[in-house]
Formats: sequence, C-alpha cells, structure tokens
Amino acid sequence: MSLFCIKQGVKDKMSQKENVPLVGILMGSDSDLSVMEEAFKALDAFEVSYEVRILSAHRSPEATSAYAQSAADRGIRVLIAGAGWAAHLAGVLAADTVLPVIGVPIDSSPLQGMDSLLATVQMPPGIPVATMAIGKGGARNAALFAVQILALQDPALADKLRAQKRKMADEVVFDKNRKLE
Amino acid sequence: MSLFCIKQGVKDKMSQKENVPLVGILMGSDSDLSVMEEAFKALDAFEVSYEVRILSAHRSPEATSAYAQSAADRGIRVLIAGAGWAAHLAGVLAADTVLPVIGVPIDSSPLQGMDSLLATVQMPPGIPVATMAIGKGGARNAALFAVQILALQDPALADKLRAQKRKMADEVVFDKNRKLE
Amino acid sequence: MSLFCIKQGVKDKMSQKENVPLVGILMGSDSDLSVMEEAFKALDAFEVSYEVRILSAHRSPEATSAYAQSAADRGIRVLIAGAGWAAHLAGVLAADTVLPVIGVPIDSSPLQGMDSLLATVQMPPGIPVATMAIGKGGARNAALFAVQILALQDPALADKLRAQKRKMADEVVFDKNRKLE
Amino acid sequence: MSLFCIKQGVKDKMSQKENVPLVGILMGSDSDLSVMEEAFKALDAFEVSYEVRILSAHRSPEATSAYAQSAADRGIRVLIAGAGWAAHLAGVLAADTVLPVIGVPIDSSPLQGMDSLLATVQMPPGIPVATMAIGKGGARNAALFAVQILALQDPALADKLRAQKRKMADEVVFDKNRKLE
Amino acid sequence: MSLFCIKQGVKDKMSQKENVPLVGILMGSDSDLSVMEEAFKALDAFEVSYEVRILSAHRSPEATSAYAQSAADRGIRVLIAGAGWAAHLAGVLAADTVLPVIGVPIDSSPLQGMDSLLATVQMPPGIPVATMAIGKGGARNAALFAVQILALQDPALADKLRAQKRKMADEVVFDKNRKLE
Amino acid sequence: MSLFCIKQGVKDKMSQKENVPLVGILMGSDSDLSVMEEAFKALDAFEVSYEVRILSAHRSPEATSAYAQSAADRGIRVLIAGAGWAAHLAGVLAADTVLPVIGVPIDSSPLQGMDSLLATVQMPPGIPVATMAIGKGGARNAALFAVQILALQDPALADKLRAQKRKMADEVVFDKNRKLE
Amino acid sequence: MSLFCIKQGVKDKMSQKENVPLVGILMGSDSDLSVMEEAFKALDAFEVSYEVRILSAHRSPEATSAYAQSAADRGIRVLIAGAGWAAHLAGVLAADTVLPVIGVPIDSSPLQGMDSLLATVQMPPGIPVATMAIGKGGARNAALFAVQILALQDPALADKLRAQKRKMADEVVFDKNRKLE
Amino acid sequence: MSLFCIKQGVKDKMSQKENVPLVGILMGSDSDLSVMEEAFKALDAFEVSYEVRILSAHRSPEATSAYAQSAADRGIRVLIAGAGWAAHLAGVLAADTVLPVIGVPIDSSPLQGMDSLLATVQMPPGIPVATMAIGKGGARNAALFAVQILALQDPALADKLRAQKRKMADEVVFDKNRKLE
Repeated sequence: MSLFCIKQGVKDKMSQKENVPLVGILMGSDSDLSVMEEAFKALDAFEVSYEVRILSAHRSPEATSAYAQSAADRGIRVLIAGAGWAAHLAGVLAADTVLPVIGVPIDSSPLQGMDSLLATVQMPPGIPVATMAIGKGGARNAALFAVQILALQDPALADKLRAQKRKMADEVVFDKNRKLE
Repeated sequence: MSLFCIKQGVKDKMSQKENVPLVGILMGSDSDLSVMEEAFKALDAFEVSYEVRILSAHRSPEATSAYAQSAADRGIRVLIAGAGWAAHLAGVLAADTVLPVIGVPIDSSPLQGMDSLLATVQMPPGIPVATMAIGKGGARNAALFAVQILALQDPALADKLRAQKRKMADEVVFDKNRKLE
Repeated sequence: MSLFCIKQGVKDKMSQKENVPLVGILMGSDSDLSVMEEAFKALDAFEVSYEVRILSAHRSPEATSAYAQSAADRGIRVLIAGAGWAAHLAGVLAADTVLPVIGVPIDSSPLQGMDSLLATVQMPPGIPVATMAIGKGGARNAALFAVQILALQDPALADKLRAQKRKMADEVVFDKNRKLE
Repeated sequence: MSLFCIKQGVKDKMSQKENVPLVGILMGSDSDLSVMEEAFKALDAFEVSYEVRILSAHRSPEATSAYAQSAADRGIRVLIAGAGWAAHLAGVLAADTVLPVIGVPIDSSPLQGMDSLLATVQMPPGIPVATMAIGKGGARNAALFAVQILALQDPALADKLRAQKRKMADEVVFDKNRKLE
Repeated sequence: MSLFCIKQGVKDKMSQKENVPLVGILMGSDSDLSVMEEAFKALDAFEVSYEVRILSAHRSPEATSAYAQSAADRGIRVLIAGAGWAAHLAGVLAADTVLPVIGVPIDSSPLQGMDSLLATVQMPPGIPVATMAIGKGGARNAALFAVQILALQDPALADKLRAQKRKMADEVVFDKNRKLE
Repeated sequence: MSLFCIKQGVKDKMSQKENVPLVGILMGSDSDLSVMEEAFKALDAFEVSYEVRILSAHRSPEATSAYAQSAADRGIRVLIAGAGWAAHLAGVLAADTVLPVIGVPIDSSPLQGMDSLLATVQMPPGIPVATMAIGKGGARNAALFAVQILALQDPALADKLRAQKRKMADEVVFDKNRKLE
Repeated sequence: MSLFCIKQGVKDKMSQKENVPLVGILMGSDSDLSVMEEAFKALDAFEVSYEVRILSAHRSPEATSAYAQSAADRGIRVLIAGAGWAAHLAGVLAADTVLPVIGVPIDSSPLQGMDSLLATVQMPPGIPVATMAIGKGGARNAALFAVQILALQDPALADKLRAQKRKMADEVVFDKNRKLE
Repeated sequence: MSLFCIKQGVKDKMSQKENVPLVGILMGSDSDLSVMEEAFKALDAFEVSYEVRILSAHRSPEATSAYAQSAADRGIRVLIAGAGWAAHLAGVLAADTVLPVIGVPIDSSPLQGMDSLLATVQMPPGIPVATMAIGKGGARNAALFAVQILALQDPALADKLRAQKRKMADEVVFDKNRKLE
C-alpha cells in the first residue's frame, strides 16, 4: 500500500528492514511545517527513518483514519502528530491505532497554543496521547521521545541517547559557561 | 438503517414525516447525560423530534463516523454534540457531514470546562462547529439554536419561538420582579 | 425599510428572490473589517447573497435593535456578528430576533480574544449564540455554517458544500503532501 | 412612570426629595439575589435609597432599554448591575444612559466568574462600565462606590464615609487583633 | 499646599472655581504616559480640568498617600489611576480617600494586563476601585466615567455627554457604514 | 539492588523474565495515591508487572536521582510519574535516564492542576516528558501508554490492546446506548 | 513601642536577645488565619520567635505603614504577609521597609488564588516581594524561607534546617513507602 | 573547588573575605542571559560580589546538584535562578541546599511566562523558592532581594538600600513629574 507517499527521512541503518520508516510524522496543515521540522532534524541526527504526511482530522478524516489503521501493518512503530487550534489530530489517530501517538501542540492561534495544548493533552481515559511542550521545543522532544521508545529494542540507539545526554550536559556545563567568561 | 437505535424524543407533529427525528443528540459518555437532558427538555417543549446516542470520538470512532455520514440521508437536520475534556466529538462529526453541528462543552474535568470549550470552539477554517456555553445552559441553548434553524422552514415553529421569547421577557419583567416585593 | 443600506455581496442566483440578501454580517467597528472579510469571501464562493453593516451594541444600541427586529421580515435568514473586547454584539442581536445568530470573537484587545470568546459564547440559557473560533478562521467558519443552515432548504447548496468538502480533503491529501516531496 | 415597580430600600432622609430612589440595582436573574443583597445592606447602612429590578440584557431587552433610558429622568443617579456568564447587563444599560453604571461580575458559571469579569470590564472605548470584584465583595463595593459618587454632592454622606473608613481601620487594628491574643 | 505641581489640563469653564482641577490622573510610571494620554484627550474634549502626577504605590508610598489624603480638600472630585504589573496604585489611593477612584490596568508585563486587571479589580470589600478595560480603551473610558460622575452636578456637562452619545451612534450608523459602500 | 523496595503489581507472565517489573510508577506524595491507583488497575488488567515508589523531586532528590539512574539496569522499561503543584518529578527523572518517562499532572493545588500540567508538559528541548491529562483519567492513560510502548515488543500484548479497543467501542456503542432506551 | 501588640510565638532561645520576635507575620483579614497558622507551626518547630498582626493594606493603611516603618528598629528581621483577592499587603509593606518581605497568596476569592498570586508576585522593578505558593503550602514555605534567611547568621539554625531536610527525605523514602507495602 | 568557574561580578569590599562571591546567579540557558543581566547590574550597583553559571535542571542535573550542594561551603549566601518553560531550576537547587533560593520566571515560551511562573512558585510544602515577577523586572528584584537578605548582617548595605529607596522615591516624585510639565 502506498498511501499518497511522500518525504522520507534518513535511513536508519541499524533498526530497520527494507527501508520502511519507523516513525510517522503527521501534521494538520502545511503551515505547521516550520515547527515540525525540528522533529525531522532530531530523527535525522539519530538516523531513525521516518515519513511525513499532511493529514487533517477535520478536512481529510478518511485519509487520516486510513493512515492510522494501516500504520502498524506497514511497519511504523510510533506516530507524531502536530496541530494547532482545537488540535484533534493526535487524538483522532490514537482512536484508530494501538501504536504510541505523541502530540505536539502548535501555537498558531491567537491563544498562543493554550487551545491546542488542552485539546491534545486532556484526552479521556482509554485513549492516551503523549503530549509534548507547545511549538518547536515540543516537536524536537517528540522526536527524542520516539527515539527513546525505539531504543528499548535497539541497544545501539540507547547508547546514542546516553551519549547525546552526556554531550548535552557538557555543552551546558563547559561550552556555554565558557562564553560567559 | 437502524444504527444501534435508542431513546427517541417527542414526535414533532408539524414538521416531520414518518416519525424520523430531526435532531441527533450525541454525547461522549453516559456521564454527560445529566447535562444533555437540558437539550431533551427544550426540544420536547417545542415538540421537535430527536434521537439520542452515546458516541465517542475516541473510543468508538467508526460508529461515530458512520453516524455522521448517514445522518443527513436518514432525515436528520441538525446534530448536537456534548463532550468534556479534550472534546473532539463535535469536530469529528462536523468532519463527516455538511449538516450544521452544534457543540456543547461539558465541565467534567478539573479545568472546569475551559479544556472542552477550547477543544470545541477553536475549529480550524473549513469545518465549523457552532459552540454553546459550558454545561447545562449550553445544552439548553443548543436545543433552542437547533429549533431556530428548523424554524427557518417551519413558520409555526418560528411563531412558537417568538411566543417563548415574549413569555421569557414577561417572566423576567413581571413574575420574577413580583417575588422581590 | 432601507436601514442605512450598504455593501451587498454576490447575488445567490439559486435561493433568493428579488435580490434580498440571505445573510446579514454585522461588526462592532470598522477595525473588525479585515477579519470579517473572510466571511465575505466564503459567502461569495458559495454565491450566497449577504449585506454588511457596522453596528455597535454599545455605541448604536437603537440601530442595532432595529436591525435585529426587522431582519427576518426583510428576508434575512442568518445573522453573523463579529466583535472584540467585551463582545456583546451577537448576544444583543440574539435578544431581538429568533433568527440563528453566529458570533465571531475578534482578538483586538490585549487579552488576545479570550475576553471576546467568553463574552460571546457564555450566553445564559434562553438566548443562544453559535460561537466560532477567534479571528479570521472563525469568520470563515461563520460563513460556512450559515451556508450549512441555508443548505437545509437548498439541495444545490448542499451539493456545493459536499463538493467543497471533497475538494478540501483532496487538497490536504494530494496537493499539500506533493509540496513536501 | 412606574415601570413594574418593586422592592425599594431605606429612605435616604438627607439627600432625596419625595422618596425617589437614588440608586437603581439591577440583576440578570433572581438567582443573583443572594450576591446582590450585599449591595442592599451597604446602601441601607448609609441610608441611601434604592430600587431593585430583575432585568435581563438578553431575555428582556426592551424593558432593560426602557429602564436605562428613563432612569435619569426619574431621579436615579447611579446604576448598579450584577450578572453572571457573558454578563452584558451593565454594558447594555451603559449604552442607553449617561448615568454612571457600576458592574458586578457574578461567579455563577463553571468558569468561576472569569467570563462575567471579562464580559463586564472589557468595554470598548466610548461606553464605560465601572467594574467591581467578582461576587459578594464586589456587590458590597458597588454600593460603597455609589455612595462615594453621591457623597460628592452631599457633605453629610461624605462624613459618614470618612467615619466608616476610620471604623473599618479600628476594627482591623484593634478588634480583630485582640481576638488573636 | 502645592504638592510637586505639574501638567494641568484644559480649564473647565463651567464647573470649577479658581482653576482648581476636578480630576487627578495618576500613573505608576512615565512609561504609562502613552496609555494615559487617552484620558487627557477625553477630558480635554469635555473641557474638564485635570492634573497629572506620576506616583508609585511602591516606589513613592508617602507621596502617594499624601496626594490621596489631600486631594478632596484641594477640590479634586475624582481620581484616575493607571498602572501595570501588580497594579496597586488605584487600591492604595482608594485606601486613603473617600473620593471615587477609577483604575486603569495597563498591559506592560508579559502577561498582557491580566495581572494588572486582577490586581486592580479584585479589591476586598470595603475599598472599591472602579475598574476599566485594559490599556488605551480603558484610559479613555476612565475619563468618560469621571465626566459622567461630574455631570451629576453639572447639567451642561450631562448635555454634552448625551450629545456625544448621539454623535457616536451617528458615526457608527452613517459615517462608518458609508465607508463600506 | 533493592532500593527501599515496595508494592509490586501483577506479574506479567508473558513479557518478563525473573519477575522484574517492567514499569516503575513514582509519585511525589502519598496523597497522590488515590489518583495513581488508576494506573495500577490498568496495568493489572494487562498483566504488566510494575513497582510503586513515593519519591519527591524536592524532598528526596538523591533517592529520586538514584532511582532514575538505576532503573534501566534493573530492567524497568517505562517510568510513570504523578505529581501536583510545581510538578517537577517527571522532569527530574527524565533528566537522569533515557527510558521513556510519562508524566501525570495531579490537581492537588487550588489552581486545579493547571500548575502541574504546565510544570510537567512544558519541558525544554532535549528532555521530553510524555504528558497525560490531569488526574485519574491521566493516570489510567499513562498506564495504557506504557502498555502501548511495551506492546511494540510483545505481539500478545498488542493483541490485548486491540481487543480492549474493540471492547471499549462495543461498550460505548451497545451497552451504554442500551441504558438510554 | 508596643503597636497594638498581640500573639507572640515560641521564643527562639538561640538567636534572639530580650525576647524580641525575629519574624513578623501579617495577614489582611482574620479569615486568613487558618492558612497562616501553617507558618506559625513551622516557626514554632524551629523555635524562631514571631509576632502576628492583622493589618490591611486597604482598610488600615496607616497602621500598616507604621508597622513596616518601625519593624526593623524593633528587631524584626523578616516579614511574612498573607492576603487574598487583589493582595496588596506584601507589596505595601515592601514599599516601606528594606527588610525582606515574603508574600503568601491566599485562595479566598472565586478565582482560586490566581488573582492574589499575580497581585503578589508581579511587583515592579525596585520593590521585591518573595512570593510563595498559594495557600497553606505557601504559608509553611514562607516560614521555612524566613528560617533559611535567619540561618545565614545562626549556624545552629542552619544545622536544624539540614537535619529537617534529611528527616524529610527519610520520611519520603522510608516511612511513606513502607505504608505502600 | 573550582567548578567550571566563570564570570564574577563586582567585588563587594565591605562584606566579603578573600573575594568569594556572596551570590550565585544560575540560569537554565544562555538565551536567558539578556534577562538575568538585570540582576548583574543591580548587584554591581550595590557592590555585592556574585558568580554566574549556566546550569540546567534537565540537561546537566549532576552539575546542578553538585553546585547546590557545595555552594554554602564555598561561602555563597544566596542563590538566584532564572529559567523559562517548565522552570525547574530554582526548585531543584532548593532541594539540595538550605541557602535561600530566589526564582526568576522567564517568558521564553509561547505561554508568556505563565508556565515558568507556576513551575517556579507553586513549590510543595518543605522546599521554598522565593519567586519574583516574570522577566527583567523579576531579575532586577531578585538581586535587590538578595541584597536585602545580605543587609541583615551588613549595616552599611542596609544604609545603601535605604538611600536607594529614598532616591527611587525622589526620582518618581520630582524628576519624572518634571518631565511632564
């Protein structure tokens, strides 16, 4: 099944057979792209393969549902969904799959993302959405969280995460402080 | 088509053929029933027929979609959807029908309905949801708004609405003030 | 009665006799015009006729009341009211007519529309206002919702709505995703 | 003119001719009475005459407008309006009179008065409403503020206000602290 | 007593003896000046005399207290206080006078005036502050409200207010709508 | 290593060797227990083993850090952390492990969980916390999300999730609607 | 000087000469007493002497100012001020002393302490108030923070703080977890 | 111990031996520097020595903990911590020291600092953080509050604070008002 196929990220050489992406990144509108690119970059850095789709819970409900229902069979392991306003995309995907769904609220409305945060995080019992911070930081963290999930089955990926954690600490403690001097 | 058929309200003798309900009242959970009953009462008072379903955007996505897609063909004219938390029900219905969808945010979460209000009202361009006030008052108003829509085609219903408006004014001006004396 | 008559939108050739507009678009101030023009565009696209008035609940209460009271008799079917700050316009119109009134909260104050949202949506039981999202998206959706109401009596309009819905889905699924490649 | 006449408070012996009340206290619903009684008590304590009406901006718009338009001619000097939800009463009165209008937001909705506060205070330029705190404290302060306005023309009333201020300070400093010992 | 005397507005020829200003406009910081100038303009238009002071509840508490305590004796009738952040100025003035105090919350902090609104309006029972909308609109309305208070003793001023109200309505109904054509 | 060992949940017979728990459930205070028990129940239903600890980011920082650092080596796969007020527990754990950390904001403060929601979800880039809804619903969803993660490596668990999803839909569509009749 | 003297807490035998209290605990109303008692208990536990006064920024401004101005000379080292609504007490005290002032927002209004939090914490540059959490937890922490300040000059007090910190950690790690078993 | 040593502020000639800084200023990211520089300036003006570190609660937890645990022994008396988003830095430092910790919420996220304010101020009982206003004003006040604490042991510093307070009042009362003329 090809499902209007598109942009596909770095090939994860370690944990993937036959080039099937492990992460699906969805967004409600192409105007969300500049935010969600933070997720692309983070997955590229960990060499985790992904695919990207624009899918709207409201404007393309059937395609969204079809995507969610077929994702697991196609080899996708984690879904990341970014949306603004009354952000239903992550919730609607979660309704149609048992894959972990990570939601990124986007601050595209006048309410600065408070609307998309509450619409994403306040899911009723039974259908969890793992919600990240509003905006670019949240998009980056969504990708890192997806890597953390995948690393449970991939010791090399777990090593990379630990290395990145040490590097991040060193950057804070040494590099950034040096600039202060 | 019967679609897990249930509670059906007062028969509107004026504006309905063969007993098909004109309004579909949906709610995300049976715990929303005490709020949504305000809508039943208001429709009963105007003798507008309705049917009631519990349908969850997240827990029963297929049934919800099927309901929305078939509603117009079954003769339904207006949908009313009440939900709490990240209230996606109205939006998900609106994605699958061109019937007018009225949303009632319900204050069932610790955030007192601010979450369901924003998740219901902040719909992206293209898919409108007509949002009412949080809770019982909103449920009653959803029903009245449905009647206002139906009254555009039903002069007798419009007369009833005008009569009720006058009665409401008289109650405020005379009855309630008399109690103060 | 002519009532300080003004800007009148595209003539709906299908559903209107003698050129009477079907939708009245009101706004509290001429500074709201850039937001409400989204509603004009949407009604133009559906060839639904409309008229536009600037009417303030607070600065021109009599003209506002006169407009609301005469709208139904003049053939208007739906009112759309956009306002910012303590946005009372929609509520004040709804008090004086049994026509459906749709409210568009406008983010013109420092509180980014939270004030106009709550002042529009939290109507007390008895007088419903169908509230849309804050700002331009809400103005567009107000027009689409008005079309959904009118389409209940106009099968051709309902067909257009269904066509637009399919087009919108296709745009998301095909056109926008193609740009990603 | 009698205008569905009702409860009338203590006669202000000093500043009033022929028993005409100086303050009009309006409220949107009889359920607001327990809050607005704080205003009655405060005016009674200052022996300022007042009248009380239930008048809804939405349910009885004509009576509300008639009241506001005739208030000044009947000798009323200050209006106090208490309302909950999308509290438009004070704003609607202010639209129809040049008398000072004091608004009391009431916390009767699930949003605890944040809706009525914003709907009362965020008036657009041109039509001021003097807004007090949410609930009973605000109702009491509305009455005190009305007395402060009336005291500008009534030296005896100003003396009473100063005396009450000293008494209030003494109560805090001496009586309440004594209880701590 | 001269009290570090400053900017003094238009002389009200009608209602004032010996050039004493009737309104005192205070603000917490000179950065609030661009907002509070809306009040100057409105008072100028009504030819009501006023004086302007920068006085901080926190940085100059003694001068603030001295101003409030002496204002009534100097002939001031109404105080207007604009402040941002934890806006205590209006409340602190109200603690030291029985003159009516009008508060204008200013949106100078990152919280867009929600902090100054709540710090101004939520006064405890006993010490009212008449709170206006956040920012420039609130500053203009504070001045209009002061004029409404003064007009209770000045029929000519009341006539001006009524004339301005009619003019405002005409501007909305005729001038602004004409621009739409 | 035993680390002040405590309550241990149902043994997952399928996916676990030698009885080591797969999920660690942490909470900031024993007063959070009634909320977090929803997570216990959900894991019990899926027969996923877990352990429970009370660990405070602020009151027992060393034990918290030690727990996070040793969790992966002890065989824990997912951490769930519930906390109220300025809820730092999930973030502090995430700082010390590359395991996925799920945060449950608890509404124990007067701000009804808005404080714990923002303190949990608004994590800076680099350290993700997967945030669930406020309170009991969020605790239940945290457990389900943990199961979804574990199910990526455990086909039987994935089957159970799919079965529970169908059952949940059936309950909504059939059982609950039957009660309405 | 005696200043309407009242309740005086446990005598700190170590760090105080001649029985002068080191901490002044002020509150805006006797209704705040049940919250502020948490501060009494914490100071009692550390044997730090304190005095308690009810002092309102608005109702007793002179006494409040006099207290703040004389506190340092009387030997007071730290002030703690608890207040609800538009909580100005801490800010007004800080305006009149260079002693450290700690503010405790109290949730006595319908807005659950959001008003008192913002009115306490959002102090303009120049006059700091050290703000604690809303309600009882904040009152307890205000006392602990006062002890931390005093401990800078009192090694024995610093030892007690360190001991209490260890005890608090042990209670979390051992006692509370044991209850779970 | 040198601990990745950096920028060190003006030497306080009065209250410090051997050049050890008295105040530690920490921030979560170098992007917070422009805000925290307000604290540097204020300490410089009072000639209080300080050191500056970038330390992240989440990205460098061990260094943060090490810093907090060693600060008192190195002669530091007060810690100031600025952070944005889910601002845990101040809380995490407070968990590891009995020195007074002052928190500065920074408005770097789309929520304008409401997230960092709540994450900083709503500390649970037992671990106080003295929270200042959001942003630059808060950073300046954090420094002034630190000076107020240090002044309890340093009469010359207390004199400087009193002098600055008088100067600030004079600036408001004289200089700024003169500009208005």
